[in-house]
Amino acid sequence: MYFFSVTLHLPYDEAVERTKAALADEGFGVLTEIDVAATMKAKLDEDLPAYQILGACNPPLALEAVRAEPTIGALLPCNVVVRQADDHVVVDFMDPAAAMGLAQSPTIRDLGSRVREKLENVARSLAPSFIA
Amino acid sequence: MYFFSVTLHLPYDEAVERTKAALADEGFGVLTEIDVAATMKAKLDEDLPAYQILGACNPPLALEAVRAEPTIGALLPCNVVVRQADDHVVVDFMDPAAAMGLAQSPTIRDLGSRVREKLENVARSLAPSFIA
Repeated sequence: MYFFSVTLHLPYDEAVERTKAALADEGFGVLTEIDVAATMKAKLDEDLPAYQILGACNPPLALEAVRAEPTIGALLPCNVVVRQADDHVVVDFMDPAAAMGLAQSPTIRDLGSRVREKLENVARSLAPSFIA
Repeated sequence: MYFFSVTLHLPYDEAVERTKAALADEGFGVLTEIDVAATMKAKLDEDLPAYQILGACNPPLALEAVRAEPTIGALLPCNVVVRQADDHVVVDFMDPAAAMGLAQSPTIRDLGSRVREKLENVARSLAPSFIA
């Protein structure tokens, strides 16, 4: 699969803030935030439950990746979805090992695994019962 | 592979503007812009050639994808890298058929192919000699 997820029983905005804080603790800055629900409302007048995509980046690992293979930006940053689902909030993490597994370079594949480990730590810190 | 590329013999800023205009002609809005070179300078004091990641989104196709499989945001938006390389500029497109090929759902895989066709049109409009 291309993602792994955790479920949070928190109000939506609090789930977003908790996710950002947990990312920061593992060295990920949030470079972009797309409010998908607001975008779909504005562009298409369609309603979606609350849905945001955070673009998370660990600068030292991203630098290593870009220097090893400049095209890798096509798979950066690591997307983290925070979305309302019925009475809970789901956080879906792009699996960087799967995405970077599309590359041929062993360096990139290794970086994908290292970033995946860090995102698993984020998932575990949000939901201690998370098992990779 | 996870990307396809075209080469532009234009000044960097003009290449960025041409890429955005070509994306708009195919119905892609640019929802995010990451200045990777500026980020690496600010966070790590490291120098990179000009390097930006544009987050391109075709709203009707993205809505279809999110409704079919809410986790798909982990692979959205479509990244388009514009980067300086020696005396030319390279534009690398994430291959959505490859990325969404990581999903099991036939609907998502079909959407990946349709988005790939549109991005190929963008590549061809930037560089008429582009062959998919």
